[in-house]
Amino acid sequence: MISKRSATRDRLLTLGLDAISIEGLSGVTLGSLASAAGMSKSGLFAHFDSKEQLQLDLLDAMAQVAATHVVQPALAAPKGLPRLCALVENWLGWSTRAGLRGGCPIAAALFELDDLDGEVRAKVVAMESQWRAQLLAVVDEAVECGELNSDFDRQQLVWELCGIYLSHHASSRLVRDAKAGKRARVAFEALLGRAGATLPIKLPKRKNNR
Amino acid sequence: MISKRSATRDRLLTLGLDAISIEGLSGVTLGSLASAAGMSKSGLFAHFDSKEQLQLDLLDAMAQVAATHVVQPALAAPKGLPRLCALVENWLGWSTRAGLRGGCPIAAALFELDDLDGEVRAKVVAMESQWRAQLLAVVDEAVECGELNSDFDRQQLVWELCGIYLSHHASSRLVRDAKAGKRARVAFEALLGRAGATLPIKLPKRKNNR
Repeated sequence: MISKRSATRDRLLTLGLDAISIEGLSGVTLGSLASAAGMSKSGLFAHFDSKEQLQLDLLDAMAQVAATHVVQPALAAPKGLPRLCALVENWLGWSTRAGLRGGCPIAAALFELDDLDGEVRAKVVAMESQWRAQLLAVVDEAVECGELNSDFDRQQLVWELCGIYLSHHASSRLVRDAKAGKRARVAFEALLGRAGATLPIKLPKRKNNR
Repeated sequence: MISKRSATRDRLLTLGLDAISIEGLSGVTLGSLASAAGMSKSGLFAHFDSKEQLQLDLLDAMAQVAATHVVQPALAAPKGLPRLCALVENWLGWSTRAGLRGGCPIAAALFELDDLDGEVRAKVVAMESQWRAQLLAVVDEAVECGELNSDFDRQQLVWELCGIYLSHHASSRLVRDAKAGKRARVAFEALLGRAGATLPIKLPKRKNNR
């Protein structure tokens, strides 16, 4: 019974994650997820107490998927700039490679929840902080490897990286600009150049990555 | 009668614009707006045929408010870098200075509507394109004035400016980073430096602009 319950829950989280990638966190309700799963709404209550709990669990599920597709493969690259470049390459457009039909749920939540209160907002803030800390740690490794200047403001570097990611997300998904990937890479390379990297940097190439 | 009807409509658009700045386009319905205005839902149908028409009209209302607070004051600055800097300064955090309680409805819509279809999405794409064309025109003036290099990719400059804006929006509103404004200005100045501007650039200072 436990494993059947767990399999149902996994299926609900997969369906729900796809749905929030398209419609945002607020677009997914217990009712809409029950309907997508062909279950009764009361059946869903066995897995999630409330819409808020569903959103929190979907964010945890997203973090796992992102770790698998973005972070773990980058850790296989050598420390320093190769790892930083791999992390950024894996980050740009990750949701599509992870099999989601929509965009990055956290990018959307940054703008969806900014003016609301509650536990879901707090979780998004915490996830965003953890992600920026992860980026910073990989930037720090590149500094330790002598590939970036130690006197460049590394928080500024991470802040601008987030801007490149958001502009890539908006230009590739909403504007459908075929040059979004190229523009992101030009911006990323210029940012690394300001931080003291020797240019040109050889970025790993990837197919289907606009 | 016409002026009373028009005044009611203006009041509804003001209330609705404030609401979409907080909750996003999908968060505002004919029912929620009727409730906020103390009107019946059927009374609202005299002004807006559908939720979609309401959203389209709210986007038009937003464009007017943004023109008043972002574009028109920048046009008073001299052509070239002063005007470009004024435009960017007016853009960062504009919704608060325009009296809205939430963030920029278009920034949110870039992530809310990217994976949906319909007239509202098409309008957001058109508004975003117009805004980027407006930014490009002011960048072009700075090139004509000899303040930026003519061989720098100006579309790239505008693309990266959009990233700075989005990172500022996320870091000031969601993360509530007190340094968001400073970081945006550092990134903007470095971008202008890459495009050939003589640094440091003297940006106009503004109070209450995180």
